Amino acid sequence: MLFVLKPGVPRPKIDEFTAKIEARGFKTFLSTGTEHTVVCLIGNTATIDLDTVVQTNVIVEYGKRVTEPYKAVNRTVHPEDTVVNAGGVLFGTGMFQVISGPCSVESEEQIIAVAKSVKASGATLLRGGAFKPRTSPYAFMGLQEEGLRLLLEAKRETGLPVVTEVMNQTQLLLFEEIDVIQIGARNMQNFDLLREVGRMNKPVLLKRGLANTLEELLMSAEYILSEGNSQVILCERGIRTFEPATRNTLDLSAVPLLKQKTHLPIIVDPSHAAGLRGLVAPLARAAVAVGADGLMIETHNDPAQALCDGAQSLDLTEFGILMEDLKRRVAFEGKRMGTAV
Amino acid sequence: MLFVLKPGVPRPKIDEFTAKIEARGFKTFLSTGTEHTVVCLIGNTATIDLDTVVQTNVIVEYGKRVTEPYKAVNRTVHPEDTVVNAGGVLFGTGMFQVISGPCSVESEEQIIAVAKSVKASGATLLRGGAFKPRTSPYAFMGLQEEGLRLLLEAKRETGLPVVTEVMNQTQLLLFEEIDVIQIGARNMQNFDLLREVGRMNKPVLLKRGLANTLEELLMSAEYILSEGNSQVILCERGIRTFEPATRNTLDLSAVPLLKQKTHLPIIVDPSHAAGLRGLVAPLARAAVAVGADGLMIETHNDPAQALCDGAQSLDLTEFGILMEDLKRRVAFEGKRMGTAV
Amino acid sequence: MLFVLKPGVPRPKIDEFTAKIEARGFKTFLSTGTEHTVVCLIGNTATIDLDTVVQTNVIVEYGKRVTEPYKAVNRTVHPEDTVVNAGGVLFGTGMFQVISGPCSVESEEQIIAVAKSVKASGATLLRGGAFKPRTSPYAFMGLQEEGLRLLLEAKRETGLPVVTEVMNQTQLLLFEEIDVIQIGARNMQNFDLLREVGRMNKPVLLKRGLANTLEELLMSAEYILSEGNSQVILCERGIRTFEPATRNTLDLSAVPLLKQKTHLPIIVDPSHAAGLRGLVAPLARAAVAVGADGLMIETHNDPAQALCDGAQSLDLTEFGILMEDLKRRVAFEGKRMGTAV
Amino acid sequence: MLFVLKPGVPRPKIDEFTAKIEARGFKTFLSTGTEHTVVCLIGNTATIDLDTVVQTNVIVEYGKRVTEPYKAVNRTVHPEDTVVNAGGVLFGTGMFQVISGPCSVESEEQIIAVAKSVKASGATLLRGGAFKPRTSPYAFMGLQEEGLRLLLEAKRETGLPVVTEVMNQTQLLLFEEIDVIQIGARNMQNFDLLREVGRMNKPVLLKRGLANTLEELLMSAEYILSEGNSQVILCERGIRTFEPATRNTLDLSAVPLLKQKTHLPIIVDPSHAAGLRGLVAPLARAAVAVGADGLMIETHNDPAQALCDGAQSLDLTEFGILMEDLKRRVAFEGKRMGTAV
Repeated sequence: MLFVLKPGVPRPKIDEFTAKIEARGFKTFLSTGTEHTVVCLIGNTATIDLDTVVQTNVIVEYGKRVTEPYKAVNRTVHPEDTVVNAGGVLFGTGMFQVISGPCSVESEEQIIAVAKSVKASGATLLRGGAFKPRTSPYAFMGLQEEGLRLLLEAKRETGLPVVTEVMNQTQLLLFEEIDVIQIGARNMQNFDLLREVGRMNKPVLLKRGLANTLEELLMSAEYILSEGNSQVILCERGIRTFEPATRNTLDLSAVPLLKQKTHLPIIVDPSHAAGLRGLVAPLARAAVAVGADGLMIETHNDPAQALCDGAQSLDLTEFGILMEDLKRRVAFEGKRMGTAV
Repeated sequence: MLFVLKPGVPRPKIDEFTAKIEARGFKTFLSTGTEHTVVCLIGNTATIDLDTVVQTNVIVEYGKRVTEPYKAVNRTVHPEDTVVNAGGVLFGTGMFQVISGPCSVESEEQIIAVAKSVKASGATLLRGGAFKPRTSPYAFMGLQEEGLRLLLEAKRETGLPVVTEVMNQTQLLLFEEIDVIQIGARNMQNFDLLREVGRMNKPVLLKRGLANTLEELLMSAEYILSEGNSQVILCERGIRTFEPATRNTLDLSAVPLLKQKTHLPIIVDPSHAAGLRGLVAPLARAAVAVGADGLMIETHNDPAQALCDGAQSLDLTEFGILMEDLKRRVAFEGKRMGTAV
Repeated sequence: MLFVLKPGVPRPKIDEFTAKIEARGFKTFLSTGTEHTVVCLIGNTATIDLDTVVQTNVIVEYGKRVTEPYKAVNRTVHPEDTVVNAGGVLFGTGMFQVISGPCSVESEEQIIAVAKSVKASGATLLRGGAFKPRTSPYAFMGLQEEGLRLLLEAKRETGLPVVTEVMNQTQLLLFEEIDVIQIGARNMQNFDLLREVGRMNKPVLLKRGLANTLEELLMSAEYILSEGNSQVILCERGIRTFEPATRNTLDLSAVPLLKQKTHLPIIVDPSHAAGLRGLVAPLARAAVAVGADGLMIETHNDPAQALCDGAQSLDLTEFGILMEDLKRRVAFEGKRMGTAV
Repeated sequence: MLFVLKPGVPRPKIDEFTAKIEARGFKTFLSTGTEHTVVCLIGNTATIDLDTVVQTNVIVEYGKRVTEPYKAVNRTVHPEDTVVNAGGVLFGTGMFQVISGPCSVESEEQIIAVAKSVKASGATLLRGGAFKPRTSPYAFMGLQEEGLRLLLEAKRETGLPVVTEVMNQTQLLLFEEIDVIQIGARNMQNFDLLREVGRMNKPVLLKRGLANTLEELLMSAEYILSEGNSQVILCERGIRTFEPATRNTLDLSAVPLLKQKTHLPIIVDPSHAAGLRGLVAPLARAAVAVGADGLMIETHNDPAQALCDGAQSLDLTEFGILMEDLKRRVAFEGKRMGTAV
């Protein structure tokens, strides 16, 4: 259940209103738009008479029951697009960002070379794995803390904000200078981790799980927003199906569908979806056209020697060529890359 | 195994060569490109010494083993794109076609009204179901023969070539004037039907089955080509996954992947994939960008009253608006709609 | 909507009642149990007042609305188990049958040798493919009509009733002496074929499609029953999932779930589900325990030389050992194999 | 690569051998069977000449290359079944255990009542959730630490060893008195958590993820064994498929397949797989027959009032009836429940 307040209600009046509701055993959270503030109630709202609340509180314009299990991420609650500020680079309305970089940070030379190159090609954020979830205990696990240090070194060299994956909440202290914390597909339902990043004041890139529905993705985002952090970027990266020709099946329908359901920005990762370098460019083009707010593309200075995911990484020249094409397409859609004016 | 012949070998020499091979127990077929003719062998080619054949037949330029189970549809065998001529409208290199019309032909007024409208909006072929496969024996099965008659009436009125689905081979005699025979998703592995349409001299639109891999789709196309009919258009229309938010999951990766594997044109059906009208436009835009050769989009003069698939049909105004957008995008890709010059 | 009639209502009274209902635009069919006859209505029953019908027709005991889309196969309509008589061998209440034989009939010696051996081991029906659906147009397609002839020869030699697959309705004339017509997984939604076998007076073995839900399986059975043939045996044979270790994923939950929804007998095919010989025995044991009415198990006199599906076929010795085990288990469940007393 | 040592080699000799191998850059671990000790090498074994090692080390009987990516869990490395001792109750060869209890510990009265009842019915371990992973942040999360305390109270009252789920590694200190630590389906690839429980000296119940292959399940078990803890019980609990009639599709083929690949015990959870109370008994019967080493069955003193998963929980009477049936079946299989003699 949500209550849309009249424009210009001062904060103490709002707090008075929410306190009254919480005294009746509900949890509330506020969604502040450019025109209206919305107060959202969580709990068994069957016990509340909506009309009575509207009639007896002058600050309330109108009330509405929300039937989806997600509230804070629901576009009904927050009709305007959320714009996420990732180290000065904006995700959301009218913007289109390209995150690029290697699967793993492998060395200082590698990450700085890649960072400079992708920046020159037009990427607006740098990615690079420091802690790597690997199916096998015997595979390369990333450079860990040293990887984070090198990533920040690359940030200092290029000015690109950085995105990297956290594997569990005990690592979060190390992520203070990281611009965007990535929650990987396998952690999409690691609820304790979601809560912890919900308590941080930092953008979160939340990847869809291999076998998770869009509603479950939204519920996981809800965990983060319900703790107070609304800086969440969703990421479609392919789902597990019976088709063996691609590593996963990229579900581009997810983009327009999520746009209807939620106000959060949505990006697409064609590299992990396809698992095949040759499909990255056409799928990236499709992602621009389908309405995504950005892309995450794996690149490597030497894919044949990459410590992981070489098969799906573009080399730096291929990435440069793709970016020239994508810039024309982003302009065609009436969107812009980079920081806002 | 295939043998690429030298340019300009006269036909009798080719026939002599294939006769010699067939005498050894192989089946052969010819793939005639603009420069080279390719002779493809089917059978246990382990018994053949490739080098010997090349050395002892002066008309052969070189030979090659093909490891995929499909031969005639394989791009290795036939490197140039196949162009399918559907009643004067071309599918393939440089062209982009939009097939539109209702799920079912319901009446003369309906199909003619829809045909005129979609033509005015820019559609280049008309679709309309006469024989409808339905999950329930109690659902509307289409107008059957009368439906075919009305569809041809609409063709005469508008000049649009027509596409409609055949449900079994006993009906094929009725399809003589139909421009493109559609094999529906549930019939993708109806092998006897595939063979029968393979013996016809008419374009076939082959839809991917709900749970079929891309390799199986190519093998089904191989059934048609192996009987002598190479006028096949493939159609991606969504696969069955765990995601309940859409009727099926549109697998757009299929388009660039099939482009690598085969020379046949590939179109996309966003209406059946999503099952939701609101997703048709964004998925159509993505299909253009990903490299498809066309679209199949369900439209209806009054979706709320449609006898089937109303939820996914665009009304005629929505379709007109979408087509304006698609025309700009097709031009952006450097492709053209309609008949070739 | 269905009406359960009082016991002992004479047929002319029933016909009078159904005629009256059909005059109002409904289709009806009768389900005759041991105690009650049930009249089932198909059509928009929202226009009927159930109580009025019960009050104004003395032969009606009570009425009930059926919400599932399937009627004739619904256990609500026909609460007692249907018993299917397959050449004297009964499927249903208290019985457990084992169908066995090769994927394909390959020669007279082969099929007769297999038939004698599986009969000696305790199989109660013989299977053998004459018309084989194959993914590749270049694979062995079965001996066709000759295969049917040899299968009937094996029947004459052993007395075992025979089961074999039909691929399309033009073949049905050839199946007159076959005891059970099999509809393969790929044909589960070949609706015209379902209708045709629905008009025959012969048991049908209907296999679940690779990507079909249980409700769709029941709707396909409904096609057959709605044409008048209620001798349908359902068969669970695995569904397509992401798991690559087995050819399909055997869905044994289907058995108790179908038992709740329908009165038709259900058997299990562990050979096609697993695609691995080593899993056939444990899955067969599980099928007995989960409540199936029988099994279909591929056997071959020489699996290494089989023209198809050798990897999943038991040899005749392995089958004999398995049957000894299964007999003990069938007895443990309080069921019997073979013809009824 | 693995080396099977001759019987009776003294430990110092073994250590000398492994030190020599580790000096060449490999990781090793020992698998100690009743007759032989096996030394397993992890690393790029292409650089090792197997014959040379066998010829030059007298303690080695023979060597073998292992191609699967999992080593410690591989039956090739450790041919005998592992027997896991869970508080005196054995999982593995010849034993069959039933774990039962509520989805969540709700109160002292509830958990003690359920514990006494399921023990009286024959359950050999008690389950109960204290920390509950929930899709929605607004759902009941379990009693947390208080839940663990109540579970241990129930253990003291009944003597049943207890199984409960850990959600993240920061909680592990609280699990000291718990007999078996459960890793839930969503955490199957929480690799840091796997490592941590691998460092504990306590049995681990590892559930298969919703969309994880059997090979991935084995790789996750490998994480635990590679840290030194070989007390792992695998659990099949259903996978995500397109079928909506059950919550998940129980993959019973997993049991015999895992039995071939690994030496670890495997149990089945029919409650979470089906999500429907009516399917629990038939699927439990099938699990016994297919060769599982045990079952995990949700029970509740009052399913209608359960704080979670009421729809799939048996009440205590239903559980008692099922156990009577299962005891007969376990005896039929030649297995025993409870502690070993």
